[in-house]
Order: sequence, then C-alpha cells, then structure tokens
Amino acid sequence: MAASMRLGKAADPERQARLVDAIQSGHLDGMLCASASEVLLLSGYWPVMAASIAIAAADGSVTVLVPEDELELAERTSWASLVPYKPAGLKTLKNPIDLVREPLAAVLKNVGLERARLGLQLGHGVQPASYLVMNEYRSSLPQLLGELLPHAALRPCDDLLEDLKAVKTERELGLLRHACTVAAAGFAAAADAIRQGMSEVEVAATAQAAFDKTPEAEGLERSYGSFYCMSGPNAAKASAAFARTRRRVIEEGDLVMIHANTCADGHWTDITRTFTAGVPSRWHRDIRTAINEARHAALMTIRPERTGSEVDKAARDVMERHGLGREFKHATGHGVGYAAANPNGRPRIHPLSPDVLREGMTFNVEPAAYFDGVGGMRHCDLISVTKDGAQVLSDF
Amino acid sequence: MAASMRLGKAADPERQARLVDAIQSGHLDGMLCASASEVLLLSGYWPVMAASIAIAAADGSVTVLVPEDELELAERTSWASLVPYKPAGLKTLKNPIDLVREPLAAVLKNVGLERARLGLQLGHGVQPASYLVMNEYRSSLPQLLGELLPHAALRPCDDLLEDLKAVKTERELGLLRHACTVAAAGFAAAADAIRQGMSEVEVAATAQAAFDKTPEAEGLERSYGSFYCMSGPNAAKASAAFARTRRRVIEEGDLVMIHANTCADGHWTDITRTFTAGVPSRWHRDIRTAINEARHAALMTIRPERTGSEVDKAARDVMERHGLGREFKHATGHGVGYAAANPNGRPRIHPLSPDVLREGMTFNVEPAAYFDGVGGMRHCDLISVTKDGAQVLSDF
Repeated sequence: MAASMRLGKAADPERQARLVDAIQSGHLDGMLCASASEVLLLSGYWPVMAASIAIAAADGSVTVLVPEDELELAERTSWASLVPYKPAGLKTLKNPIDLVREPLAAVLKNVGLERARLGLQLGHGVQPASYLVMNEYRSSLPQLLGELLPHAALRPCDDLLEDLKAVKTERELGLLRHACTVAAAGFAAAADAIRQGMSEVEVAATAQAAFDKTPEAEGLERSYGSFYCMSGPNAAKASAAFARTRRRVIEEGDLVMIHANTCADGHWTDITRTFTAGVPSRWHRDIRTAINEARHAALMTIRPERTGSEVDKAARDVMERHGLGREFKHATGHGVGYAAANPNGRPRIHPLSPDVLREGMTFNVEPAAYFDGVGGMRHCDLISVTKDGAQVLSDF
Repeated sequence: MAASMRLGKAADPERQARLVDAIQSGHLDGMLCASASEVLLLSGYWPVMAASIAIAAADGSVTVLVPEDELELAERTSWASLVPYKPAGLKTLKNPIDLVREPLAAVLKNVGLERARLGLQLGHGVQPASYLVMNEYRSSLPQLLGELLPHAALRPCDDLLEDLKAVKTERELGLLRHACTVAAAGFAAAADAIRQGMSEVEVAATAQAAFDKTPEAEGLERSYGSFYCMSGPNAAKASAAFARTRRRVIEEGDLVMIHANTCADGHWTDITRTFTAGVPSRWHRDIRTAINEARHAALMTIRPERTGSEVDKAARDVMERHGLGREFKHATGHGVGYAAANPNGRPRIHPLSPDVLREGMTFNVEPAAYFDGVGGMRHCDLISVTKDGAQVLSDF
C-alpha cells in the first residue's frame, strides 16, 4: 500500500482542526464516510463516481481510498493521504464494494482503527450529484466494515457531520464566493433573453450556455451548475423542493423566475432572481417591495448567536404585514454549501429552528410569494455569517 | 390514505407481468425500492428528489409513496397507485425518513406485506442523477422497515433487480429510442463547432445548448442530458469511468471526442463520436478503420443466446489484429438504460462475462483506442437485441 500512496497538494488546517474537535466531542476514535459530500468535507476532494471512502483518525489525519482514474483530481484538491485502487478492468467483473475490500482492510489496519469507536453515515442524508451517475454503497459498506472490524464499535455520526458541514472554513468560503461569481454570467444572459414569445426551455438554455462558457478560475478543477426557468403559473409551482424548466412560452407581463445551483469543486450555491417579461405591473412592484423588505429584515437579524427561527420570523413578519404571509409557503432558508437544496441543511432558517448562528455558517435567504395558477416571485441569495452580521456572497 | 390515493395514467403490462415473474422466481411476496432507478423500474415514475418509495406485491400491483410536489409527474408517468406524503413544510423540522414513517406503515398494512418475504435493495448499486441533489436513505430505511415489519423477512433482491433492468419492454425501448434521437442535435452542433482554437469548454457548451433547445416530444416529461468534449491528450484519458470537459484549446490534427449521456424520463443513453480537428491523418484513418471493423464484428455477433464474452471477443479480436489490443483498455460494453455508465450493468460485454443475451436487452458497443499523452478514439452506440440480431438505437 505504502508504495502507491500519495499525498494531496491542497491544505485546510482550519478544517483539520475542526475535525479533531468533532471526533473528540463525539467520543469517537475516527470517522469513515463514503458519500461524496462527506468525503469532500473530510479530505477536500469531491469524488466523481462516489466510490471513494474517506477515513479520519482522531489526530485529524485523513486517508482516502480513491479509484485510480480519480487520483489526479484527488491529488490537486485534497490534503489527505490518497490510496488508489484499481477499477475492475478486463481481469475481473468485481463490483466497487468487492474492489475496495482489500485496500480498505489495509488502510484500517494502517491507521490503527481495528478496535476503534468508528463513526459512520447510517442515517438519511442529501447528496448533490457529483456526476451523471453515482455509486451507492447502501447497506453493503456497514456490512463490510462489520466483517473487517469485528472488534470495533460502529456508531452513527450523521449528526456530527451535519454540524461540521454547517460552518465553513476560509478556504471553503472562497470556493463558495467563486461559485457565486461565475453564476452571474448565467443570470445576466437570462435577463437579456427573457421576453414574450421565448420559451422557458430557450431562456434556461441561454443562461446555461453563458454559464458553461465562462472560463473556470485557475486552480479550480470542477465548475458545474444548472439553470432553470419557470414562468407565469409555472413560477407558482417553484415552491416545490425542486426546480423544473418546461416548454411553456413566456407571455407579456409574466413573472419569470431564474433559478441556479452552481458549484466550485463540490461547494454549492442556491440563487434565484425573478424578472418581469415586459413592464412590471403595480402588483409586481408591490410584491417586489415586500420581498426586498423581508430580505433586508432577515439580513439585519443575522449575526452570531441569533437563532434560525429569529431570522425566519424577521422575514415572515414583513411578508405578513404586506398581506403575503400565506403566499410565503416555505422557510426563509436552509444551510447551503455541501448541499445545494436540502431543507434540513443547517442552519435551518425555519419558524421552528433552534439552530444558533455561528461565524462561517452559510445559508440562503429566499423570501418568496407564490400565487397558484398565476405566478411566483422569489429572491434567493447565498449568505455567510460574519462576526459583524450577514455577508451576501451572491451580490450581483 | 385511500382518500388521497391516485392512480397513475401510464401503462406497461409487459413490465408488470415480468415483475410478477421476478417476485415469484425470487421466492418473495413483494419488493420495496427507494433508489430512483428502481422506483422507475417498478412503477414507470422516475422520482426527482429520490425520496419516493415503491412497493410491489406478488400480483404485480405497485404502490408508490410520493412527495406531494412530485405527484403531478408521478401521475403522468406511472401505472402505480400513488400515495402522496406531505413535505415538512412550516409545521415541522422532520427529515424524509421521519415523514414517510406513518404513510409507509399504512401502505405496508394495506398491501398485506406485514408477514411477507420482502425483497430490499441492500447491496451496492449505481444511480443516474435524477436531480442536482438527491436523498439517500442509507441504513435508515432497512432499519425503519425492521421496526415496522417485525414479522416480515427482509431479504436482498439486488440481483433480481439487476436482471429485471437488463431486459427492456417495448415502452422502455421507445423511450430509449427517443433519448437517442434528441441526442443527435448535440452531436451535429459539436461536429460543426470543432476546429483549431476552440476550447473543449466551448465545444461542449455548444453541443449542450443545441441539445437543451431541442423541443421535447409531446408526452415526455423530462428530457435531460450532458455533453462532454475531450481533445488530444485529454481524449486518451477518456478510458476513465467518467467523462470530463477541460479548458484545453483544440489544435489542428487533434482527435476530439464528444461524449453524451441523454435520458427520456429516466431511461438513459451512452453515446460517443470522435472527430478530427482539420484533416484526418493516415494514422487516424487506420484507427477509425479498426474501430469500425470491431464495431461491425460485435454487431454481427449479437443475437439471443450469445454471451457477453463472445461479443467482446469479436470486437477485441479485430482490435488485436490491427495491433490495437493494448490500446482497447475497457470492455466492449455494458448494460445501459436504467443507468448511463455502469460497468457492471447487465449484460456485461466483457472478456469474462457469462451474461446471456436476450431479446430486449440494451447495452452499448464502444470499441476504442487510447494512446497516453497523444489522443483517443471511441465510437459508442446504444444497441438493443432483437430476435434477428443487433439493432442500433443511436443510428445517426
């Protein structure tokens, strides 16, 4: 194993220090993750096929089992010790779970976790797509670990991981800022394209192409994203958990919502702007005023030690005062970064959220009003918490 | 429950009959799936957020728990009984696994599976991305089922599902044909765009935009896809498990590989074409000749009762005869449809594959040659097995 091991070229000492604290506070000796976002969290490397496995020891040292054809990517983005494993190739028909068996046993022995209290991801989670197709280990990985580590105590560490993902390091904030910056090109192209007679499909494709052609920053490996367009009555449906571009042709006076999730090396944004096709009506201007005020009230409330429910209340009170309480159908926001669109991402900016804001947390603020069968307006920004209050990362 | 249950408007009696056979042959009383591709297999509905759960009974009747905001999509594409469940909304902070608990218990009781031999997905699998972010139940779903069904026998049915996914119905073949047809626009645009001085990013974005703007067929809900461009030495790296577009600027004489995976309502293709920037050299023409002959040999070998290894050998022998055996680094193909790029998808067209071809199977045939540091050429088509032999679905 040692012969082929390589050391990643990136660094994030802040993240490694927090990892040491988390393992200690969870009364664990280590953590093992195979979901792509949590491999990213532990190692800086965002797997492509989600077949990598990251193992963190109590001292913060991390080892990642990496499919050989992802080693180059892993080296450039990670600070971990990287152990490549061979894909099945022409010599065998093995599945990934069979392919990792031997190298995983060797790594676990090497890092001294044979009798460890080892934290695993066993509960429900939300994963951004790291590629068009992804591996799922399902129950096969806990089962393999049970076989390989008969003397270890395997424990859920999902909660610890959710807390770790909530607070970003300076390096991670930089990547999120970059993912916001590159999204701007897509929104500008959409704003230019929106007019009566254009279809949602055409507007979204125009925004997507502008984004796709924006050069990636030097040093960044993967800059991805998707743009969506929802107009008129379809914008009313945008309160759903997902966005969807349809074939509808935009009409004069429609509200037209452009939604995007973009990412820089696995760190995701969540951004929405709403435009009017043609001249905004008085009614449109009134809704926009309410949403702007609600956004402002939320931003003014954000600072360390405030709770998610306080921020939600600030925005919701404004919407209610404008008579739009019932139309503001979802929470004011949720944690964003390691996932783009997870309503349970921490901190939850929700009427019932006990989550306490801390410096470095990132989430969206998305006041909105949806009118069934008619239209919808949402303004969604990505925010980070600084010691002085909210900073808008999507400030374009 | 009965009050809100709806019946899907689609139909695929062929699929339902096979489901009955599979449950019987697996000595099961039912199957329960939560991964998006297997919910699609059982019900015709491809979940968006991968938070739906499909339950099939021994008589082939299927019930799907659907998040309320996906009900409209599910109704249009499924033949199952659909039971919507409410998202967390503003009244609770529950996770999906908590939200489905009660409706799942009710469905299991209703379909009489309380003492069943119930097949579950417990092993490793590969999932296409149904959205930018997806739910993962991980171990939480088998655990919940253990609690809800203390008298049932929960058994792995992964192998049964892999076999079921391998053979498509007429309806599914129609969707795959459509997904191939719409891909053509992207390839045509790429062929037009490729020239010295264009970057891979620009070529891929041009192909993507042409595909994105192609109107969806009436009756189709979701037509997705991604286009990739890999040129010169980057095309040599395309033997990896994944495609990747980089910033490289195309040079005169480069081999330029365009790869796409497209889908129609969850049914995926896997298609690659390779072009030359400028005039093909003698060497390029020789490689193309070898690849065309290898493809032809594979196609001529394909018919029911042949094995995957026989088809692989037919193509590999040709490549070896042309002195390109070492450069043909991967298997000749793998099952495609429910996953776009799964080397373990059945039937495996691999030197060691015992998989026996059957009418209705779909897979790719992708003879290729990769020259490290120089270039690569691949021609990848989607094929279906008919009683008379191979049919090329990606015939453009």
